[in-house]
Amino acid sequence: MSIRIGIYGYGNLGKGVEAAIRQNPDMELVGVFTRRSPESVSTRTEGVSVFHADELVNMTDKIDVLILCGGSATDLPVQTPELAKYFNVIDSFDTHARIPEHFENVDKTAKESGKIGIISVGWDPGMFSLNRLYASAVLPDGKDYTFWGKGVSQGHSDAIRRIEGVADAKQYTIPVEDALNAVRNGSAPELSTRQKHTRECFVVVEEGADKERIENEIKTMPNYFADYETTVHFISREELERDHSGIPHGGFVIRSGKTGINLEHNHIIEYSLKLDSNPEFTASVIVAYARAAYKLNKAGESGCKTVFDIAPGLLSAKDPTELRKDLL
Amino acid sequence: MSIRIGIYGYGNLGKGVEAAIRQNPDMELVGVFTRRSPESVSTRTEGVSVFHADELVNMTDKIDVLILCGGSATDLPVQTPELAKYFNVIDSFDTHARIPEHFENVDKTAKESGKIGIISVGWDPGMFSLNRLYASAVLPDGKDYTFWGKGVSQGHSDAIRRIEGVADAKQYTIPVEDALNAVRNGSAPELSTRQKHTRECFVVVEEGADKERIENEIKTMPNYFADYETTVHFISREELERDHSGIPHGGFVIRSGKTGINLEHNHIIEYSLKLDSNPEFTASVIVAYARAAYKLNKAGESGCKTVFDIAPGLLSAKDPTELRKDLL
Repeated sequence: MSIRIGIYGYGNLGKGVEAAIRQNPDMELVGVFTRRSPESVSTRTEGVSVFHADELVNMTDKIDVLILCGGSATDLPVQTPELAKYFNVIDSFDTHARIPEHFENVDKTAKESGKIGIISVGWDPGMFSLNRLYASAVLPDGKDYTFWGKGVSQGHSDAIRRIEGVADAKQYTIPVEDALNAVRNGSAPELSTRQKHTRECFVVVEEGADKERIENEIKTMPNYFADYETTVHFISREELERDHSGIPHGGFVIRSGKTGINLEHNHIIEYSLKLDSNPEFTASVIVAYARAAYKLNKAGESGCKTVFDIAPGLLSAKDPTELRKDLL
Repeated sequence: MSIRIGIYGYGNLGKGVEAAIRQNPDMELVGVFTRRSPESVSTRTEGVSVFHADELVNMTDKIDVLILCGGSATDLPVQTPELAKYFNVIDSFDTHARIPEHFENVDKTAKESGKIGIISVGWDPGMFSLNRLYASAVLPDGKDYTFWGKGVSQGHSDAIRRIEGVADAKQYTIPVEDALNAVRNGSAPELSTRQKHTRECFVVVEEGADKERIENEIKTMPNYFADYETTVHFISREELERDHSGIPHGGFVIRSGKTGINLEHNHIIEYSLKLDSNPEFTASVIVAYARAAYKLNKAGESGCKTVFDIAPGLLSAKDPTELRKDLL
């Protein structure tokens, strides 16, 4: 018996979930659900149907876990609590400041329906959060560092694209090597986000655009670039497509901490990701947690959960005996 | 109300646990238990009593979690199942091949007594196992690599000490940088333990001993050194004490895996530890899991558990609301 998965929303993340399900033989994709016209969407998996989102409520007995692939700004705050009335759901809600509120909303409807809702799954929030938690529990006297990159920031790329005369752009967030090394050496420096990252921009301009003005507008843009060391490269549309069409990302979570009767010993715990495809990796994490959602609900649990609440063994397709034998 | 901890066994690990408890304000050390004469043992924490191990059965209402700090060869296979009849227990059993059997033994007595027994806690088995599990669940198409070091191997140091003419010795296991980099670059090479590690030995000889013979005996020792690139340095007792008295260790768990509709994207997940004190870090992990043992038992659970069965949030002194707000 496979775990029957539904995908709601078919952007980059939804497509990543579709691909990830093919890598997990204990899962089966029931269908893709969209608010667009279903005929306008074609999936990459043969035999998988596309349904209008309105069909969902008629398919409650056909889907074990519904994976919500919408955005955190407006989609998920509404969809996750609403759909937890009918399904085990899982999302990648990543607006850190609003997680407590989102948790409460999902918890309420999921408890009422007897379903599981897992929120904020991915790598940050997600695997990075887990590593911050494990490391700080193990080394209570210490300091946490999160570095992001090298990777494409969608928000910063969009900000550049809004400048007059810009045809297209990609922005990479890059961790500062010296800052990384200072942390790894155990010196536990104080570092702001700005001291930890630089920004590199690849910009295609419209014909006749004033490059000097554009570069200046980027570098002085408040919040996004003004306080960072920022580099701007003007390139052709062909170069952008050839060299910058991927969505790589990654980063580092490091804890530097002390132990010993006089705190005389230093320890570094480092977790890092180097990802060719940000949405596909996020999707892969979500799919593993979808398995956990299924198992938890089978075991009679309900309500909202995060990665902090879920025993790691539940993510695996292997049974506990096998896991102890092979991986412990 | 503090979590009341007992320590059974007062070697390097027991001392590490004592130090770690001081870093966790929600815990209190009730006493150290030993099979030696209690008068012969003095702890480093004022006001902490040393008891003979025979006293344990009279103190079942004074201890919430008993941390077993004996060896995996003969102590823990007997002690953990036996003491799980009376206490929530936790150990660092690390004989990989015998984990399934140890699990069954502890599970039986812990279920009968209604207590929790957590086995094989530390960093390998322990944090490394967790990282192998998370990474393989997230990237099912991939390969795992574990590198150990740079660090002191007690077993290899002991093997050198048994050679005639050797007064003392320390052996470091060192990961091969080129092998590490090949893995990080995503080339997913096939690597044996031998190709991943070299061995460096610091040896103090007795007066008049034949260094050439000793070096040869080390380098040709089956299983321990014969198949490894091994370096031998003869040094003075003073140098050994000055430069090699620590017990550092560490290592790397890396998964190289693929995603995408045609498995066209590569991802690297890397977890690494750089530890000044192997036993103190192991102890710090154990103490965090002792908190989980306490919480699980309070919640009515019993039986044997491993790190795979325990939700990460249970390790933290913070409550779930705080964790979601601060670390997710």
